[in-house]
Amino acid sequence: MLASGFISALEKFIPSDQYYLDPADCYAYAYDNSRKIFPPECVIFPQTTEEVSQLISLCRLYQVPVTARGRGTGTAGGSLAEQGGIALSMERMTRIIRVDVANRVLVTEPGVLNENVQFAAKPHGLFWPPDPSSAAYSTVGGNIATSAGGPHAVKYGTTRDHVLGLTAVIGTGEIIQTGCYTTKGVVGYDLTRLLIGSEGTLAIITEATLKLTPLPVAKGGLTAHYRDSVSCAHAVVNIMRHAQGPSALEFLDTGSLSLIRSRNPEIAPAASHAMLMIEIDGTTKEVENITEQLLLACQNDGLLEASACTDIDQLWKARKTLSPLLRDIAPKKINEDIVVPISQVTNLLTGLAQLSNHYKLKNVNFGHIGNGNIHVNLLIDPDDSRELERANACLNEIFDLVIQLQGTLSGEHGIGSEKRAYINKELSSTTIELMQRVKQAFDPDNILNPGKIFPQASLSSK
Amino acid sequence: MLASGFISALEKFIPSDQYYLDPADCYAYAYDNSRKIFPPECVIFPQTTEEVSQLISLCRLYQVPVTARGRGTGTAGGSLAEQGGIALSMERMTRIIRVDVANRVLVTEPGVLNENVQFAAKPHGLFWPPDPSSAAYSTVGGNIATSAGGPHAVKYGTTRDHVLGLTAVIGTGEIIQTGCYTTKGVVGYDLTRLLIGSEGTLAIITEATLKLTPLPVAKGGLTAHYRDSVSCAHAVVNIMRHAQGPSALEFLDTGSLSLIRSRNPEIAPAASHAMLMIEIDGTTKEVENITEQLLLACQNDGLLEASACTDIDQLWKARKTLSPLLRDIAPKKINEDIVVPISQVTNLLTGLAQLSNHYKLKNVNFGHIGNGNIHVNLLIDPDDSRELERANACLNEIFDLVIQLQGTLSGEHGIGSEKRAYINKELSSTTIELMQRVKQAFDPDNILNPGKIFPQASLSSK
Repeated sequence: MLASGFISALEKFIPSDQYYLDPADCYAYAYDNSRKIFPPECVIFPQTTEEVSQLISLCRLYQVPVTARGRGTGTAGGSLAEQGGIALSMERMTRIIRVDVANRVLVTEPGVLNENVQFAAKPHGLFWPPDPSSAAYSTVGGNIATSAGGPHAVKYGTTRDHVLGLTAVIGTGEIIQTGCYTTKGVVGYDLTRLLIGSEGTLAIITEATLKLTPLPVAKGGLTAHYRDSVSCAHAVVNIMRHAQGPSALEFLDTGSLSLIRSRNPEIAPAASHAMLMIEIDGTTKEVENITEQLLLACQNDGLLEASACTDIDQLWKARKTLSPLLRDIAPKKINEDIVVPISQVTNLLTGLAQLSNHYKLKNVNFGHIGNGNIHVNLLIDPDDSRELERANACLNEIFDLVIQLQGTLSGEHGIGSEKRAYINKELSSTTIELMQRVKQAFDPDNILNPGKIFPQASLSSK
Repeated sequence: MLASGFISALEKFIPSDQYYLDPADCYAYAYDNSRKIFPPECVIFPQTTEEVSQLISLCRLYQVPVTARGRGTGTAGGSLAEQGGIALSMERMTRIIRVDVANRVLVTEPGVLNENVQFAAKPHGLFWPPDPSSAAYSTVGGNIATSAGGPHAVKYGTTRDHVLGLTAVIGTGEIIQTGCYTTKGVVGYDLTRLLIGSEGTLAIITEATLKLTPLPVAKGGLTAHYRDSVSCAHAVVNIMRHAQGPSALEFLDTGSLSLIRSRNPEIAPAASHAMLMIEIDGTTKEVENITEQLLLACQNDGLLEASACTDIDQLWKARKTLSPLLRDIAPKKINEDIVVPISQVTNLLTGLAQLSNHYKLKNVNFGHIGNGNIHVNLLIDPDDSRELERANACLNEIFDLVIQLQGTLSGEHGIGSEKRAYINKELSSTTIELMQRVKQAFDPDNILNPGKIFPQASLSSK
């Protein structure tokens, strides 16, 4: 319960149309794409950095937890007000402050949708490379909080690589500026990248200086089918050796292809057990040249067929067919975004087949194979508690396998609450304790998204 | 003075051929390229992470400062044992542990020279993009400690963009692992990039997992001369709009060109007041196409002449002619590496001309204009104390100008001891205090390179 002193202090600087206290209103801010539900006690819609600063000072005074959220599209529970307190919705900080074409910089408030950044940049021949699948409805602030990435990360990197500086409010209520306005800078510690991916546990981002990239003029595509995942993985290594590589390099495993064939047999040849979708961007000439080179790089004994796509929609057809099929066959999927070194993808897939077989679970895998970032899906019926139990046991072993293959537990979703029980598989206790001391430097009273990322007992979803 | 207990404890785990205590031996480790001299009381040459860990624990116990160094090529004083204690020379940790071609990863100890990383990667068609001018004699560890960059940063970024993970020893003596072995990963805070550029104040790096990049097959070049810096700066903005941009974009100002003409009149036309040297890399076809496009991007009313170079040595001839000339006319130069947004380069150059005129100083500017990273050189006679005084006053105003133009004080050299007096021009006291709390999280007793980066009274060079 929020103290009445807190609420009356809040009313003094936050206009009444900028917060909710009614539980019915607050409930709309209780969830994200992790499907857990934690209603906040209050939702606040700040409009300025100064409001956020005053608010955090007040929350510190009353020891009220504050969990920032963009549009709640995260899958790891990072934006849930798990310990109650304030849901700080940044959705009204939607001003694009500046598009600086000469310097290829865009300064924005955190509540702007990724897509709207693209709309603002495009007329100038520029774009912001981070491309999570939620781009149309996720915010820049959320993208930064998780270091979001997507298929184009294989060429352009993730959010971490495309932010020059931030304005943020730390857990003391103080405002900090990180980074710079230029593409080079080494003055003091790199707090910009420390905040990127910190899931709202270190500071509330109130403004971001984004680095824009010139838009490629043309795009092309290739698809390639393989007899087995081993030859497919070899092709990936070959493709990634090219200096001018693909702009996306996506993969569908044998389980995904079986599903797709059941609905659209024309998309995948019967003998195909692994498919690559390869996007290429550049000038028209470059796209032609690179397509030619990558078509060669696809060749090996296991290749069934490889061909250039006439149009780019054709390239993604198989992938787009898959999502609704997955929803049809399993009302719930456990979707992980683990990463392994490319050379280990085959071992990962073999291990996944063994584990899903052992635990009698349906398993389908696909994703950003150019980064070794595979979406591992366990398809389960949530009403079958024994299946859910088997899935959790399987997941635990999958994470062990990933670590054993020198991989990482999350490539783009983050830890939030969903993966914190596993984080000590990857990080030593020394490293975790150091990170917690770093958190303390930013947030001495642990009011910013408390409990997230680091191991602790999970609270039960309401 | 080191306590005798410290020395006898040291002797127990560091073999006698791995340290110096004799002041004459230690003196060789008293300097770096800042030209200041601070002799350490002991030089230690660790061979393993475990030795470093034990040593730091011991130093903590005895409150002995430890300053890590590679080959002492830094220009900001970052590697000087300013407060005495230990110079921790990483020069014997020179093993390249693994070249993993399939995953484009190279794992190395910190004492390996940048150039030797390139030699190890090249046979596999790979390279590590950071290219400080010291690449032939600076270490990977030093490159990481300063987030070193060079001319190719305009296309490839700086060290920060090319390190996947680190092993390091923090100020408690504990060993941490940061980052991962894959090109994507968002598990916990980004400690890797926090350590990059932290100049040995947070941890001692003992192993680095480097991300390698496919080597371009071909290189080409262009030079362009302009009537004035305004039209040159316009051309830079135009060039940087291209999706497939230059691999280097270097600039010489009117002062640099006058000097060059005095020796080699054939290199620069008499009317040229600004020169661009543009390198292009890629496949042979790409180099041809991009050269054509960038030649067009160079065109404007102020262009005197632009032409493709027949060979790449030709491209850098003007720049290479300049360095010995600078040494000839001024025994000492104050060389700063400030950065401004590209659109502000003209204002910077105008301001520099006014300031050097006002302070009666010779000023020559050149550098990585694609990043807005300009090396500002004040050419002075160190024996002329009044000139030195004027130069310091001028420098102070130059830094004010840079900040006013939304720039940053250092693009690649770092702060060390040389620029710490100015850091509060760029960072707020809140941000500096936060950084100091972060340091405390890593190094609770302030034994790692104490006094560096943050404002404090300067100690006098011996």
